[in-house]
This record gives sequence, structure tokens and C-alpha cells, in this order.
Amino acid sequence: MSNSDIILGEVVGTAVLILLGAGVCAAVTLKKSKSQNAGWLAIAFGWGFAVLTAAYIAAPISGAHLNPAVTLGLAVQGNVPWDQVPVYIVSQVVGALLGAVLAWAAYYGQFQAHMADIAHQADAVEGAKDAKAGPVLGIFSTGPEVRNAAQNLVTEIIATFVLVFAILTQGLNDAGNGLGTLGVLITSLVVVSIGLSLGGPTGYAINPARDLGPRIAHAILPIKGKGRSDWGYAWIPVVGPVVGGVLAGLLYNVALG
Amino acid sequence: MSNSDIILGEVVGTAVLILLGAGVCAAVTLKKSKSQNAGWLAIAFGWGFAVLTAAYIAAPISGAHLNPAVTLGLAVQGNVPWDQVPVYIVSQVVGALLGAVLAWAAYYGQFQAHMADIAHQADAVEGAKDAKAGPVLGIFSTGPEVRNAAQNLVTEIIATFVLVFAILTQGLNDAGNGLGTLGVLITSLVVVSIGLSLGGPTGYAINPARDLGPRIAHAILPIKGKGRSDWGYAWIPVVGPVVGGVLAGLLYNVALG
Amino acid sequence: MSNSDIILGEVVGTAVLILLGAGVCAAVTLKKSKSQNAGWLAIAFGWGFAVLTAAYIAAPISGAHLNPAVTLGLAVQGNVPWDQVPVYIVSQVVGALLGAVLAWAAYYGQFQAHMADIAHQADAVEGAKDAKAGPVLGIFSTGPEVRNAAQNLVTEIIATFVLVFAILTQGLNDAGNGLGTLGVLITSLVVVSIGLSLGGPTGYAINPARDLGPRIAHAILPIKGKGRSDWGYAWIPVVGPVVGGVLAGLLYNVALG
Amino acid sequence: MSNSDIILGEVVGTAVLILLGAGVCAAVTLKKSKSQNAGWLAIAFGWGFAVLTAAYIAAPISGAHLNPAVTLGLAVQGNVPWDQVPVYIVSQVVGALLGAVLAWAAYYGQFQAHMADIAHQADAVEGAKDAKAGPVLGIFSTGPEVRNAAQNLVTEIIATFVLVFAILTQGLNDAGNGLGTLGVLITSLVVVSIGLSLGGPTGYAINPARDLGPRIAHAILPIKGKGRSDWGYAWIPVVGPVVGGVLAGLLYNVALG
Repeated sequence: MSNSDIILGEVVGTAVLILLGAGVCAAVTLKKSKSQNAGWLAIAFGWGFAVLTAAYIAAPISGAHLNPAVTLGLAVQGNVPWDQVPVYIVSQVVGALLGAVLAWAAYYGQFQAHMADIAHQADAVEGAKDAKAGPVLGIFSTGPEVRNAAQNLVTEIIATFVLVFAILTQGLNDAGNGLGTLGVLITSLVVVSIGLSLGGPTGYAINPARDLGPRIAHAILPIKGKGRSDWGYAWIPVVGPVVGGVLAGLLYNVALG
Repeated sequence: MSNSDIILGEVVGTAVLILLGAGVCAAVTLKKSKSQNAGWLAIAFGWGFAVLTAAYIAAPISGAHLNPAVTLGLAVQGNVPWDQVPVYIVSQVVGALLGAVLAWAAYYGQFQAHMADIAHQADAVEGAKDAKAGPVLGIFSTGPEVRNAAQNLVTEIIATFVLVFAILTQGLNDAGNGLGTLGVLITSLVVVSIGLSLGGPTGYAINPARDLGPRIAHAILPIKGKGRSDWGYAWIPVVGPVVGGVLAGLLYNVALG
Repeated sequence: MSNSDIILGEVVGTAVLILLGAGVCAAVTLKKSKSQNAGWLAIAFGWGFAVLTAAYIAAPISGAHLNPAVTLGLAVQGNVPWDQVPVYIVSQVVGALLGAVLAWAAYYGQFQAHMADIAHQADAVEGAKDAKAGPVLGIFSTGPEVRNAAQNLVTEIIATFVLVFAILTQGLNDAGNGLGTLGVLITSLVVVSIGLSLGGPTGYAINPARDLGPRIAHAILPIKGKGRSDWGYAWIPVVGPVVGGVLAGLLYNVALG
Repeated sequence: MSNSDIILGEVVGTAVLILLGAGVCAAVTLKKSKSQNAGWLAIAFGWGFAVLTAAYIAAPISGAHLNPAVTLGLAVQGNVPWDQVPVYIVSQVVGALLGAVLAWAAYYGQFQAHMADIAHQADAVEGAKDAKAGPVLGIFSTGPEVRNAAQNLVTEIIATFVLVFAILTQGLNDAGNGLGTLGVLITSLVVVSIGLSLGGPTGYAINPARDLGPRIAHAILPIKGKGRSDWGYAWIPVVGPVVGGVLAGLLYNVALG
């Protein structure tokens, strides 16, 4: 696979992934959205089918990793040359940043209405603004319900391990077919599964680019009253998924290699 | 593909699409419906599986575009002759109009009960009738939560771009198989994805025929107290999807052609 | 296909269909069920995946019609010999009756708890018993929200037409593969679609056996305080689906035969 | 299939199954989980897609039984040698125990917060602790809504029969393909179906290992105030599924063998 194909597929694919993923978070969170409060099933299916859409677009171009943890797992497995790994990862982060900006553009009116409403309430109740701005960061990046670095890392490692290990067995399931259409479908339902089952504690980043790119977008975008980008937590949804992905590759090689 | 096959497939297919799509909106909105208030997940899966059902029926006949934005994207891509484009589009609008009338027929009793109830309330509270009639138009056509032409256009362009770009990559994913059964399934889940993720601001027309045909039906049908058909907004769910679909075709040709 | 295969496949398949279909209605309706009040999405997916499970079991044995309207549509299409039609239909009604009894057995404890609770309330409020018993019939058979024979017939005819027409195009979509595994999946999602979109007015029988078999079970089973079986409505979910299925066959022959 | 492949596939696969299955129960039950109270649809899809993920991983290694009732059904059918049956079953129970511990690790912070909250309430209201601890066992193992051994057995037998009989017909549906990717998808949706339709009375163990392994984990794990492990009920989700699985095998042989 050429570097230009990798860049094209991963930038476009990860942008679509985050456009749709941040999109469903915006849809469920913001005022003046038809689907406000649609609930966790909407989040889990929304992110899962975001993977489906993005991977269907990117699979024939770049193989649709869309996730540094997947790229690293495949590299450890021996299916991606190590010198292409940085090309994949940088493309994924750039795509994720781009996708978050697109989601903001699609929900611009909702962001305006939501922040104006919060500002209005904050005038009435001094100090309520910071607390209420929290959900806006949650549209872009993940955050823990119980903040504890070790616990949050363990959750992200376990969840990412499941994702990447399932992807690494695709070669055994659909030998010689690459990431075919059925593989895209299965992977998207695996992501729905992880969202439903392991998303409760940390919001399941399971993808360093999915968290880092949108967090940069949150820091940059001119959203009035958006609050802090919580950089103190940012390393966990990077390190956890990287460890989970590499572990999946290593255990695959030991057990099935 | 012969013009008579196009007309047959697109009229029947788009009629089924709108029967089921307007149907789920009626099901969730109207009084005396068993699924009233079933929520946004019902809407998103309802429209997605409406696409599945309609495309499964129409795919072997006309290729199941069911959407002028898809037809235009495929024409720009070079996969539909330009002189067939008007045949597709007119058939789609006619089918959509027909489908909306069928949905009204299927929910006739619910429309009667709902409008009678609103009229009853309006007698009690002078002037409440117009406000309450809003949801009835929402069964037929889309409308924005925050009314701003530029913002609404951007949302529809982005959402339609994702849909059409995904469809244009089907040739790369399932080379030589046309719109096979797996392609129909994937496309329907892409529509669920867009509904969950990008439907919040405008109700995701992403299809000029899907909005225009039912709006004409709303204007024509004898529904007592139905309120206005909001023609001032009608150009946005036409122009936005057309721009999104053509953009998808152009970018496909530049990047992957 | 031999008559003994038809009987085996249709009795077992329709029994599984109604066990799971009446099961989800019991699950959502009855007290002391973990999923009481799980909502309409549970109903629609529950019935759809009931079709999936039943059709997957019966497809390789009898072709998995599981529905007299499907059998009649296929007979009109020319894909089922007319002398086998009664074998299919009788097997389907017998299977449906059997399935309803199995669902009652699986939820026996819930029926007991539910009816005891209603009886208890009825002692307190004279005359409340009949009104409350309504939902118990709804576990077995369908009933309209707005009772009007013409309207209810139209709804059932339209909904069944969509189902059977989609099934009749399977030959075009998956030529020579019979009702393959993908066809089973698609059909089940078409049933989810119809449930979400056209189920609101009458509860979507779309299958004479699905309504008649369980209604007989309701009439026979010793459920204390179960109320009437509403035989006055029983002809509509038989005649409507039969008309819808035959219409689908006729239009298929005219348009695509 | 070699014993080492069976052990590897069944331990890893069943661990993933229970990690995700107990995970969704924890996600919906515990305080400080983003998806607390996500409802029964989340449970049913969560367990179904847990099967999808686990079976996709284990299918090419061990055939992905992941369930003693499935192994016994296949053995009766003649597709698993009887001397491998104990290898499968012991691996499944060990994997299930492991998976429950992993789910506890992923939700460690939530367990801490939940139990602290219950202890706090129990201080206020003497004796409330035991009653409140109930849901914690429900994260690990199943329990009946109406406790009656005969009724609970019947429900588990019927539900497991449907699951195993559907799996036994895979050979007829997808002859010669083993448990292919489509078979994994169908099986997972059958499990969603059973969860929606037959899960209400007992919480659908339909798998002795799924109930026994996590119950042992519950007994062992240091969760403060966790309450009893309800060993008096433990035999029912073992015996019921075993009877259901063997019955499915016997009836398959009689009717279709």
C-alpha cells in the first residue's frame, strides 16, 4: 500500500468516523437537537455505525485502520510494515481533528443555542457555568466517571484489547479476503458491543486518535464558554489503547502466530 | 438500463421508502398509535430499514437510487448516463409523493384522532392550534430546530456527502457485483448512522425527493387543521443534498477516479 | 418439496416464530418480567429477530414461509404448487397455536403474578378488571387502536403488501440461492421496518397464522381473568394479510413476471 | 480439532463473552456508569453482540461453542466426539470465571462507588443493605423474578432449546462452511432474540458456564457488602440449559438426522 493511499484513506476515513461519532454525542447532548437525550443505545449504535460508514469508505483505499491501536496491533502481528506506522498514525490524528471540526460545523446552531442557554443560566446562578460546560467537552473527547488513572487505564486496556484482538482474527475468519464488507460489518458490531459493555467507566476511547484529535479541536474552536480541555486526562486514552493494541498483537503471536 | 425499468424501480422503490419513512414519523408522533413517543432510535432505525426494504425491492430493477442526490453523484462519477438523470429524478419525486399518500392512508385513523384532539384543545385555548399542528408537517417533511439557511444548508451538505460518498465506494468494495444484498444492508446502516449522528439539527433530508414529494402530499391531502407546508424552507432540503451529492462525485473523481 | 418436509418446517418454524413473538409481547407487558415496559423498539426488534430465528431453522426444511400471506404470494408468483398451499397454511396455524402455548409456558409465573395483581386491584375498584385484562389478549393477538374495519384492513393490506413484495423479489436479488442466510437476515430486518413504520395502528399482524393461532390459544388456555378473545376483530388480520399477499403476487407478475 | 486448540479457543472466547456480558450488566446497573439505566434493549443487544465478538474470535480456533449446552447438542448431533466434551466444558467454565473477573476489573471504580453508596444508605436505614445488594449478584449470574424451580426450569429449557436447535441447523443452511462469519452474525442475533423474547422470567442463562463461572467469581471476589451468591438457585441455570441442549440434539436427530 502506497503512502499516498494510506494518507488519503486514513484522513478521510477517520474524519468520517469522528464527524459521525462526535456527531452522535452532539446530537444527544445539545439543546435544539431533535435527538437530545436519546440515551446510551443511540451513543453505542451511533459510534458503531460511524465505524461501519468510515471503514466501508476507507477499507478499499487504506485498509481502514482509523485507529493507532489497530495499526500497532497489526504491525506487531506483522501485517503492517513498521515504517508505515507513523504515516497511519499521523493521518488518523489529522483526520480525527478534521472530523471534529466538521461535527462542530454540522451542529453550529446547536452549539450556539446550547452555550447561550448556559450563559443565561450562569448569569442567574453565579458559578454554574463551569459545571454546565462539562458536557461540551464530552462531545469531543472521553472522560472518566470515577477519576483514577490506574482504574481508567485498566478499563481502556481491556476494551481496546478486545477490539484489536477481534480485528487480528479477521485473517483467520475471512482468509485472503482482506477487510471485506462482512468484516466491516462485524467490526462495527464489535464496537457497538464494547460501547454497551465496557463504555460505562471512561466513555471507551479505545482509539488514541479518536480522543486526541477532537481534544485539539476543542482547544482550538471558538466555542464561547466551552470550559477547559482537561489535558490532565488526555494521556490515558492514548496510553491505554496503545497498550491494549500492542498486547493484543503480542498475545496473538504467542497463541495463534 | 431501460427507461421503463428505471421508472418502475424508482417509483415503486421510493414509494416504499417514503411509506415506511413517513410511516415511522407518524407512528412516533400521532395519538392512538401503539408506538407514540418511541423516540429517536425508532426514527433512525425506521428510516434506515425503510431504505433497506425499498432498496432490496428496487435494486434488481433500477439499481435503487431512490434519491436525486445519489443519482447525481453516480452521474458525476460516470456511472449513470446524463440523459437518464431526469428520468430517475422525476420518478423519485413521483414515488415519494405516492408513498406519503400511502402512509397517510395507513395512519388515516390516527390522523383523524390526532387532529380532532388538537382541535378540541384549540377550542379551549385560543391560538394553540397553529403551534400544535407543527408535528403533522414533520411526519411528511423535514424542518430545522434552529432556522438559519446557511447553517441548515451546511448540515444537509455534510450529511448527504457522507451518504453519497459511501455509496460511490461500493464499486471499490464489491467490485462487479452491482448493488448486491450486502451493499443494500450496508447502505441502510449508513442511513441509520447519519440519522443518529447528523439528524439532530435539520431532521436529515439527505434526499431532495424524500422532502419535496411528501411536502407536496402535505399541501394536497385533506387533513383538517394541518397547518402550513412551510414552502419557505423547502429549497434547503433540495439544494443541500444536491450540493452534497455532486461534491461527493467530484471528490471521488479527484481522489479515487 | 415433500409434504412431510413442509409440515415439519412450517410447524416447527411457526411455533418458534410465535414462541418468540408472543414472548416479547409477554416480556414487555407482564408484571414480574425483567423487561416490562421495554418499549416499542423491543417489540419491533423482538418480532423481527423472531422471524430471523424461525426462518433460519425452517428455511432449509420447508423454505420458511411461516405465513399464509407469503405462501399465497409465492403461489400467485408461480413458485409454490397450489395443491401444497393448504399444507403450508394448516401447518402454519397449527405451529402458531403451539408457539403461543409454549410462550405461555415460558411466562407461566408472570401470567400468574400479573392476573393475581389485576384481580387484587379489581376487588378494590369494582369493574376495573375487564379494562385491565386487555393487555393479556395483546400478548397473543393483534388489536386496533382506532377500531374501524375499513381503516384497519387498509393498514394490514399495505403492510403485508410490503412484506410479501420484498420476499417475492428475493429471486431477483439472490438468483438461484433459494432463501439463503442473507435473505433470512434481510427479511427479518424488513419485518423490523414494518413494525417500526406500520405497526402503530393495528399492531401489524401481516400474517393470518400469527394472529389466528394465538387467538385460539388465548381462547383455550386456562388464564384466570383473561377476558374475551375479541373474535369480532379476528377476520381483519386474516383477510387483510391475505389480500395484501395476493396483491403483491399479482403486481409482481404484471410488473416483473 | 486438537485439545489445545479447544482449550485456547474456549477459554479466550468464553472469557470475552462474559467480560462483555457481565460488562453490560455492570454498565446498566452500577452507579457512576455512563450507561446506568440504559434499559433492557441494551442488555439484549449487549449480550447478543458479546456472543458476536467472542464467537468471531473463537470460531476459527475451537468452533466457538462457548456454552456446554451447545457442546452437548453438537455431541448428540454427532458433530463433536464425546471424549472432547469435558475439554470443552471445563474450558468454558474456566473462561467464564476469568471473564467475570475481567469485567469486575474494568468496572472496579464503579463497584467501589456503588457499594460505598449502598453502605451509606444502609447506615441510615437499618437492614436495607441486603435488599440493595441484590443487583450486584445480577451482574454476575441470573436469578428468577418468580422463584419456582419447575417454572424456571421450563423457561430455561425452552429458551436453550431454541438457541441450540438454531445452531444445529447451521449445517443445513451453510453446508460445508463451518461456523462462517455469517453464521456468527446470525447466532448473535438469535441470542438478541432470546434475550428480548424469553429473558423476562429468569434472565436467560441458556448456558451453564455463563451462570456458574461468574457465580464462582462473585463468591470469590472481594466486593464489600456483595451479599450472598444464591447457591440454592445455581443448579437451575445448569440443569435447564443442559436439558434444553440435549433435547435439541435428540429432536434434530429424529426429525432431520
